[in-house]
Amino acid sequence: MTQSKTGLGREDAALQPQADGGSSSASKRRLLTEAQEADLREAREHRSQTRRVTVPALEEILYEPLPVLDHGFVRVVDYMGDDSSIVQAARVSYGKGTKKVSQDAGLINYLMRHRHTTPFEMCEIKFHVKLPIFVARQWIRHRTANVNEYSARYSMLDREFYIPTPEHLAAQSAVNQQGRGAVLEGAEAERVLEILKTDSAKTYEHYEEMLNERADGGVIDESRAGLTRELARMNLPINVYTQWYWKCDLHNLLHFIGLRADPHAQYEIRAYAEVLLETVKRWVPLVCEAFEKYAMTGTTFSGPALAVVKRMLAGETVAPEDSGLSKREWRELMEALGREG
Amino acid sequence: MTQSKTGLGREDAALQPQADGGSSSASKRRLLTEAQEADLREAREHRSQTRRVTVPALEEILYEPLPVLDHGFVRVVDYMGDDSSIVQAARVSYGKGTKKVSQDAGLINYLMRHRHTTPFEMCEIKFHVKLPIFVARQWIRHRTANVNEYSARYSMLDREFYIPTPEHLAAQSAVNQQGRGAVLEGAEAERVLEILKTDSAKTYEHYEEMLNERADGGVIDESRAGLTRELARMNLPINVYTQWYWKCDLHNLLHFIGLRADPHAQYEIRAYAEVLLETVKRWVPLVCEAFEKYAMTGTTFSGPALAVVKRMLAGETVAPEDSGLSKREWRELMEALGREG
Amino acid sequence: MTQSKTGLGREDAALQPQADGGSSSASKRRLLTEAQEADLREAREHRSQTRRVTVPALEEILYEPLPVLDHGFVRVVDYMGDDSSIVQAARVSYGKGTKKVSQDAGLINYLMRHRHTTPFEMCEIKFHVKLPIFVARQWIRHRTANVNEYSARYSMLDREFYIPTPEHLAAQSAVNQQGRGAVLEGAEAERVLEILKTDSAKTYEHYEEMLNERADGGVIDESRAGLTRELARMNLPINVYTQWYWKCDLHNLLHFIGLRADPHAQYEIRAYAEVLLETVKRWVPLVCEAFEKYAMTGTTFSGPALAVVKRMLAGETVAPEDSGLSKREWRELMEALGREG
Amino acid sequence: MTQSKTGLGREDAALQPQADGGSSSASKRRLLTEAQEADLREAREHRSQTRRVTVPALEEILYEPLPVLDHGFVRVVDYMGDDSSIVQAARVSYGKGTKKVSQDAGLINYLMRHRHTTPFEMCEIKFHVKLPIFVARQWIRHRTANVNEYSARYSMLDREFYIPTPEHLAAQSAVNQQGRGAVLEGAEAERVLEILKTDSAKTYEHYEEMLNERADGGVIDESRAGLTRELARMNLPINVYTQWYWKCDLHNLLHFIGLRADPHAQYEIRAYAEVLLETVKRWVPLVCEAFEKYAMTGTTFSGPALAVVKRMLAGETVAPEDSGLSKREWRELMEALGREG
Repeated sequence: MTQSKTGLGREDAALQPQADGGSSSASKRRLLTEAQEADLREAREHRSQTRRVTVPALEEILYEPLPVLDHGFVRVVDYMGDDSSIVQAARVSYGKGTKKVSQDAGLINYLMRHRHTTPFEMCEIKFHVKLPIFVARQWIRHRTANVNEYSARYSMLDREFYIPTPEHLAAQSAVNQQGRGAVLEGAEAERVLEILKTDSAKTYEHYEEMLNERADGGVIDESRAGLTRELARMNLPINVYTQWYWKCDLHNLLHFIGLRADPHAQYEIRAYAEVLLETVKRWVPLVCEAFEKYAMTGTTFSGPALAVVKRMLAGETVAPEDSGLSKREWRELMEALGREG
Repeated sequence: MTQSKTGLGREDAALQPQADGGSSSASKRRLLTEAQEADLREAREHRSQTRRVTVPALEEILYEPLPVLDHGFVRVVDYMGDDSSIVQAARVSYGKGTKKVSQDAGLINYLMRHRHTTPFEMCEIKFHVKLPIFVARQWIRHRTANVNEYSARYSMLDREFYIPTPEHLAAQSAVNQQGRGAVLEGAEAERVLEILKTDSAKTYEHYEEMLNERADGGVIDESRAGLTRELARMNLPINVYTQWYWKCDLHNLLHFIGLRADPHAQYEIRAYAEVLLETVKRWVPLVCEAFEKYAMTGTTFSGPALAVVKRMLAGETVAPEDSGLSKREWRELMEALGREG
Repeated sequence: MTQSKTGLGREDAALQPQADGGSSSASKRRLLTEAQEADLREAREHRSQTRRVTVPALEEILYEPLPVLDHGFVRVVDYMGDDSSIVQAARVSYGKGTKKVSQDAGLINYLMRHRHTTPFEMCEIKFHVKLPIFVARQWIRHRTANVNEYSARYSMLDREFYIPTPEHLAAQSAVNQQGRGAVLEGAEAERVLEILKTDSAKTYEHYEEMLNERADGGVIDESRAGLTRELARMNLPINVYTQWYWKCDLHNLLHFIGLRADPHAQYEIRAYAEVLLETVKRWVPLVCEAFEKYAMTGTTFSGPALAVVKRMLAGETVAPEDSGLSKREWRELMEALGREG
Repeated sequence: MTQSKTGLGREDAALQPQADGGSSSASKRRLLTEAQEADLREAREHRSQTRRVTVPALEEILYEPLPVLDHGFVRVVDYMGDDSSIVQAARVSYGKGTKKVSQDAGLINYLMRHRHTTPFEMCEIKFHVKLPIFVARQWIRHRTANVNEYSARYSMLDREFYIPTPEHLAAQSAVNQQGRGAVLEGAEAERVLEILKTDSAKTYEHYEEMLNERADGGVIDESRAGLTRELARMNLPINVYTQWYWKCDLHNLLHFIGLRADPHAQYEIRAYAEVLLETVKRWVPLVCEAFEKYAMTGTTFSGPALAVVKRMLAGETVAPEDSGLSKREWRELMEALGREG
């Protein structure tokens, strides 16, 4: 795990105007309004003394929006604990972890390998996230977390919609019912982007019309009452951006990342999971290393699959039809072993 | 609690073509396709013997879709336990509840009054629900439940959108940031309905076009690949219907109903909460009676508010500015006591 | 999976007086009082008609105490769903599972292999369990379940203590800080049993004395007040038996069994986990088969361990010091592969 | 809320040898060993800079054991957030709370009054607690928290038992099945204390004998193997002390305190709840004030009870038999209103 992989240089750019991912370098965007940036700068400038454990590498990016997709971001807003806190809880000790980092690393590896999950629950982190509603709907399925979402009953939603960059405009996969195939090209791709952009613009315009209010707060027609916000919003498509505060313990965060940074997850939520993983690397590097070793790059074999591996290691040539595995299980096993089926 | 209140006659109508709530009686609709109705009839016709406790009044409506809003429904798919199960668990007994219904009722009242919530967790119910996405997003915030949602990554969504009936087209409330005011009328109401209907139709048409597939499964243009379903869906507005299996214990179901059948809840989710309450009445009538007495029609007074009530009962005329309450607290107290502020 | 393995013949014996596990066949015991047996017989004799899915193999043992340890038991009190319910929820279908058992099995295998856990949450089961307090304290750590425990603030505890049979009187393991070594023998074993029996008897006698009440309800000394139950109980050792109603969904039940039927779990809770697994076999045999294949007999390899396996399969002789694994990881890998380290 | 109520002067004494609660001032005790005190001093002396919100009043007592009962304590080990964090989350804002404390207080009051609980979940706190097992068994029933308990499978338990002070040796209540009556006196009280002390000492001595190990780590008899720790512990009574790390969000902590600081809770867990409440006062004083107003000193009236209050306020003299309330409900209502039944 090197620094270059963890994106440790990223935050310098985070508050700058950014190239819109995938579009021409000329199209800049701002993640925040000026007032929001001022709030954030004030929060970042303020320092306090504390007796709590602190993590300088995470403090560096505290409060800063890390960009995701075209208008989204992830901001670390607060955290509790560090690598040593896991050791401290596992030992129910009166002080911090052990005296040596190598001992801490060994115990963390052991806990991860043997799925002793409760010590990892002793670290907590809080994010502010901006994300499209269809991503939010997948995200919220992780129930062991705390959430406060921006209320579109109470306030107007911003005019921000997720429009994929061309390289993410994939066709339906022919083999995987819920996967992506090749990238769409030419006129078909253009037409899709045109539809998405047009319908986003049109439905938002109608949202304003029904509310009788413009995004800037101005009234459109003084003679009209305006539809209530809790109804008007229902005309907006699920690629509109929402935002929330989301707080989670480290064990459940890793579970989230394990599922959502997986290649089978939809690209758009994977983009968020990967940024979350970057923050975990800054926060608890020993845990992150163990997690990548056991959970991200590891594999589970069923009893029958393990039996096949043992026969192969004993020098036997095992035929699929003699393996006790279904065709699909056989194929998955060969893939895991990096062999041709 | 009489039968007429509990809607016990409702199920006879549930499988029939129905008047669209609020529109003219001529506009009939079907909740299910013929194939779905056949599945459901088969499930309803099958009877088994069981040693488990059963609830005939709930069995009557088992599997039947109870209509909600214009295309939604709630179906009870399975249940565990009855009123006596709460008593059984509270007593950790070897048999069923007590010998007498009146004793069961007394204990259930006691448990409800003193917030002994765990015995109510010993009953479980499973629903199949069809609901607009914006309702689903409020619903899913209740985390202590099990959910399996229809996957729009895997399958195409139906062409069904929630369009409010005219009497539910409310203006934004002037006094309550997240409430409804008077009903919109005339041209403004017509324009809103026109927008909602047009944009629903248009975005669904584009959904089909991007998928290169029609709702009936046919391919539109053999020369095109079609956008992957997990992306194409993002053009649909949040009034599109989704569906899920939702399973919950009785305590958490009552908590859900208490919050969502409340007048402050958005009308659309309240419509679901009220149908859920009907099923609870059939299932556990003693619990339901206690719940309505304590949770639905009861009120909580703060310490300072209670002090005001005591002074008033002692004959004192309490002035708002002399009450120790804020203006808002005073107004809420007077409302709860049914008095002018 | 054959019937003989699942203990399907067990229930016939369950209500009979039983040989005390491990002690001489002359020492019989009853699990229940006569009044409790009468309650249970009444519950078992009653049959109702239901439209719900039912599982005859589970109905056979419904309400019956399955003996565990010397005074404990597990009784299935209620259940919701069967194998087909998992398929039904995964498909969000209007009817039951698929049309063919083999299709259901295939889908269940797929869901288990890919950790799609939510459909397994759609089945629910409720147990009445009698267990020693030190087992209860391990058990309750599984938080996603509903519990009602017998209250020793409200009622007197029975005079029942767990005393291990001689073959379970293990010495402390020299290599594993929280494991068992060889069985104690001779005078040392006898002394341990003597201590456990004497202290249990003595502390219970003092419990009665402090309460000023005998186990049969009689007052000991009319001139005394008697210590409150909530305090008197604190003199009892943690091998005293308690009991509770415990309700759990199938996913979390399997997670419980996976951890607690594991060889690293303490024998006494493992004894319960194994009886729970028997009930799962009766209830959802397809799920149980998949669970045993993937979770019980399967193994997870870390990324570095998998790399070693690949090198070995390619014909390379990998030395421990050249494997990238710690000594402990290497030993665990060799054990998993059934090879000498 | 004054300082004297909140015990803000308490921490100065916390690390000093203490008078055993209720016994003569001569019997001093230490909460920690010298090594533990050294660890703790080191943790307290260390200061870091942080960009996170900090709470000086809570930092003051960070890591210090606040004494509870005779050998127990509560130590705040870490925390996340402050009063402003609730406002920040409720508003999903980019900066901290509002600009004025009075606005924050108003919003927090509103959220508490209307049971908008999710913003309170955005603060988190972690404690190290030493407590008797019978208290731990009540405590652990609160499932929405993270726990790591000292393992008596892995290590030996300390020779520490809860022995009530004489004024807490209550008789069983004659009217409340799970309550306390008058304090025991004279010979009966002496006999109870003698039993508790003798049995604690005797069972611990036997614990050491079975382990073949003394509390100081020495082996008793080199010729014996020693019973495994996971079995030997089962001879210890449930007034033996255990310890754990316990982490909880503010909403669930307040729920815990509301139930466990209630007069109906057993005195021994109430003693812990009251110390927890003290730490909450230091941590989030605005939340604490709202909590005391609404949850601690407030009351919930059922619908029928509220109807009685309204009739009384209208000048009517309501008779119990004419109130629609049961005798018990009537008595509870009169108590809440501070009137004679």
